[in-house]
Amino acid sequence: MQRKSFGEMQCPIARSLERVGEWWSILILRDALHGLTRFDQFQKSLEIAPNMLTRRLNALVDAGLLARRRYHQHPPRDEYVLTARGRDFQPVLHALLAWGNRHFAPEGASVLLVDAASGASADPVLVDRKSGRPLTEPDYVLAPGPAAGEGVRRRLAFARSQRSPRPSSASPRRGRRKRGAP
Amino acid sequence: MQRKSFGEMQCPIARSLERVGEWWSILILRDALHGLTRFDQFQKSLEIAPNMLTRRLNALVDAGLLARRRYHQHPPRDEYVLTARGRDFQPVLHALLAWGNRHFAPEGASVLLVDAASGASADPVLVDRKSGRPLTEPDYVLAPGPAAGEGVRRRLAFARSQRSPRPSSASPRRGRRKRGAP
Repeated sequence: MQRKSFGEMQCPIARSLERVGEWWSILILRDALHGLTRFDQFQKSLEIAPNMLTRRLNALVDAGLLARRRYHQHPPRDEYVLTARGRDFQPVLHALLAWGNRHFAPEGASVLLVDAASGASADPVLVDRKSGRPLTEPDYVLAPGPAAGEGVRRRLAFARSQRSPRPSSASPRRGRRKRGAP
Repeated sequence: MQRKSFGEMQCPIARSLERVGEWWSILILRDALHGLTRFDQFQKSLEIAPNMLTRRLNALVDAGLLARRRYHQHPPRDEYVLTARGRDFQPVLHALLAWGNRHFAPEGASVLLVDAASGASADPVLVDRKSGRPLTEPDYVLAPGPAAGEGVRRRLAFARSQRSPRPSSASPRRGRRKRGAP
């Protein structure tokens, strides 16, 4: 592995990335949310090497995103079903879907989220469940939570200091700059 | 690289993953959305090896998520600013944040999305912009878009066949099973 462990970082994004581990894992979760459960289904869908698929399925089970379920006794055969934690990953996939459709589908969308009753295409937006308002700046911002350590607080304080609208070169705080830029 | 190119897959999720490329890229985008722009800022925040950071920044520029901007002429110094496409990645990060807080923060949340005015913690949920309804099954489902090829249509048809509530072992369609499971 060419990276340190993100699981030790206090950032919830880094920790999430640690659990899904690799791109393959995200596509396995995508397929699981589509109803695939069996090794050969995943393999056929993803055209992934069997040893890689075994490794990723085991990692997803270890991370508590998938659970093994025996569906046949003789010979023994297990399938992989989503746990609540795995199912909860769906909004991340939907956000990726919306981003991909917007920016990387020059030929038009291949996959859409649609209203099951009307068939109308949905426009995914992340909102606050209580207020219904979109979670975008400047209305909503990141803030340290109750468990935030020194590193997280420093990072968020810096982010806050950047939010007031002004030219970004006006922040020499951590720059290596010797003279002022124009 | 231990994987084939996801960019050739028609799935918008796979294509998005191709562009953000690696976990590091996601954390660089996170920091960029926090207002970081300069090489040494990213390096300090991420504790990433310089050659790796250079590679990831270049890849993000090539993918159109960051743009180089000269902020100092002598000596020449560039900073990295988000493009519209890069800024648009924010909902993916917020969805990851919410998932991480829910499942991988046993000590409590370190980072929260809060209402900037009241300070109240937000509960992120993905909804349809028009109807305001949460994008969850069975109300919303995936469907082939206008550009969907044969592979995508087959995958979504299988997903659709799995949605009707019944024991998952009742679907021998692609199983290797020789006899019926109990």
